Amino acid sequence: MTTKLPVLDVPIVLAPLGGVGTPELAAAVSNAGGLGFLPCAYSTPAQITEQIAAVRRLTDRPFGVNLFVETQWDEPGDRVRRAHERLRRYRNELGIPHAAEPPLPPRHYRQQVEAVLAARPAVFSFTFGILEADVLERARAAGIATLGTATTVDEALALERAGVDAICAQGAEAGAHRGTFLAPVADSLIGTLALVPQIVDAVQVPVVAAGGIGDGRGVAAVLALGAMWAQLGTAFLLADESGISPAYRHVLAGDPVRRTTLTTAFSGRAARGIRNRFIEEMSNPDDLAPYPYQNALTRDVRTAAAQQNRSEFLSLWAGQAAALAKAEPAATIVARLMREAREAAQRSVRAAGLPVGTI
Amino acid sequence: MTTKLPVLDVPIVLAPLGGVGTPELAAAVSNAGGLGFLPCAYSTPAQITEQIAAVRRLTDRPFGVNLFVETQWDEPGDRVRRAHERLRRYRNELGIPHAAEPPLPPRHYRQQVEAVLAARPAVFSFTFGILEADVLERARAAGIATLGTATTVDEALALERAGVDAICAQGAEAGAHRGTFLAPVADSLIGTLALVPQIVDAVQVPVVAAGGIGDGRGVAAVLALGAMWAQLGTAFLLADESGISPAYRHVLAGDPVRRTTLTTAFSGRAARGIRNRFIEEMSNPDDLAPYPYQNALTRDVRTAAAQQNRSEFLSLWAGQAAALAKAEPAATIVARLMREAREAAQRSVRAAGLPVGTI
Repeated sequence: MTTKLPVLDVPIVLAPLGGVGTPELAAAVSNAGGLGFLPCAYSTPAQITEQIAAVRRLTDRPFGVNLFVETQWDEPGDRVRRAHERLRRYRNELGIPHAAEPPLPPRHYRQQVEAVLAARPAVFSFTFGILEADVLERARAAGIATLGTATTVDEALALERAGVDAICAQGAEAGAHRGTFLAPVADSLIGTLALVPQIVDAVQVPVVAAGGIGDGRGVAAVLALGAMWAQLGTAFLLADESGISPAYRHVLAGDPVRRTTLTTAFSGRAARGIRNRFIEEMSNPDDLAPYPYQNALTRDVRTAAAQQNRSEFLSLWAGQAAALAKAEPAATIVARLMREAREAAQRSVRAAGLPVGTI
Repeated sequence: MTTKLPVLDVPIVLAPLGGVGTPELAAAVSNAGGLGFLPCAYSTPAQITEQIAAVRRLTDRPFGVNLFVETQWDEPGDRVRRAHERLRRYRNELGIPHAAEPPLPPRHYRQQVEAVLAARPAVFSFTFGILEADVLERARAAGIATLGTATTVDEALALERAGVDAICAQGAEAGAHRGTFLAPVADSLIGTLALVPQIVDAVQVPVVAAGGIGDGRGVAAVLALGAMWAQLGTAFLLADESGISPAYRHVLAGDPVRRTTLTTAFSGRAARGIRNRFIEEMSNPDDLAPYPYQNALTRDVRTAAAQQNRSEFLSLWAGQAAALAKAEPAATIVARLMREAREAAQRSVRAAGLPVGTI
């Protein structure tokens, strides 16, 4: 038995946007008839509780929260120390202290999960693997729909076997972290256009399409591919309610082409962002600690870079359709996406040779 | 002034399918109302003339031919000799002779171009760069529409400046060779869903979408993205009229997931195909000659492998939606694609919230 997914006015889902998403943005998308999302992976359990309450103060519509499933951690060792030392030059350049001991990632995953379950959002989405069986069962019992992230057909099948209520098919175009958890990332970079119909065919549960959906044309396209909802992140990065730093906003709104690349430099896991000096200089895997250590190590660098308007050290996550993002209020973005999607869907019907008035 | 593109009954274009495409397949797609394509890159000028005549005996509909634009060649040297020597083990395994001198690629590009211009196909498409200005001008004067291949917005803009009549936007999902000719291939792997709308916005000429279109859902999707036509290659590989070898057909029709990868092992240029032993063993760039030398070097190996049913040495080109390909006559494939596309476009219209009867 699966949990009921919320019924939406429009098939638009806000991608969680870890580090950038805000309660205001999540609530605005939900109030516009879509499904807002709150990123909780980088939040403490107390922050999760607070932020979910903040969303609820702004909307009575359904919304979702996202967590990163805790992956196997190597014990910190020489590699973490070496990676910490490697960052000294950037700390010097930014004028921030270099601690003797490397900062370590918090170990609070189970408490994060408890905070989410206790808050009972409409949807609990997750990335980097599969929620533990007991967590999935408790979510089901609490009426929380679960949404797992798949980058391959094999991952979608594994998620369905585990009993999720829906699957987010994350194409290779997507900005930020790859959700890949079975095969290597390099073997799991399937374009959204190819991935979505193959996952739709493989599983019984609804599929949410993510990756490369830049505007309403992409929304109409993934609906044609069989997706129930279209999930967009980069398209909302420049929203008024987004928590994007001025330096990040400046880069995204600037370069008209916005070339992206996959990098492990910021977190130790592959993620897509706009190429900058940090990515270029940190391309040697020997300089990096594994996830989540690298993420903890670079946090002070990224925070200081945002404060000092130094985009060359920021993780400028963006998908391959970033050039289509517009600076508008989130509600305006949702309305525009749907207007564009309707036009695009009509164009598709006409181009496919259906006479006017046949549907 | 641009040349008139042919008017098609259905917005389906057969990808050229170098090494596999046949006059029968091209004619069948054109007779079904789409645009058939004849691959001519690996043909001598005399073969081009013959094969275009063969298509004409089978159809009076418009069709296209494709050539690879001649790229700068390094002079053969130690690298070619070393790559030739590296193939000795496979020749031994296949029981074919290893010549003392490496086989060299033919130097007949200008004669290939002359054969195409003389035959006056409806469309002249090209890959790996931009046809010379005089060739584009002569094509225009002869009423031949030109179609250039772009993998980035920059390449599309360069093609438009050169005066092509239409642009094929090749997404990262596409099987066989990457058409990339400006930036490195690794920086030019943009998914079709993200690439097509950005090229549509950037240029005035019509855009043909290619890459990852596995069935009619993909056709409807790229029409929604703004493409005029959908170009499919892998979807026609198993067609009755395809020239695919039994070993290649067996692999494609077998494994239900059909993982693909990019490789330079067969030709010296990046191309997407199904991973096999040859790709795995030849992943060291030091073992390979540059394009087109590597292509000439591996020809005897690939030919013998096809004759001996040894798929581990074949270039098994396939796109990321290969699992959706079906073994049917080409006309049946075209009819099915359009039926699926109409259903998908209608689904998209409904999901986008347009009431029935509004278009």
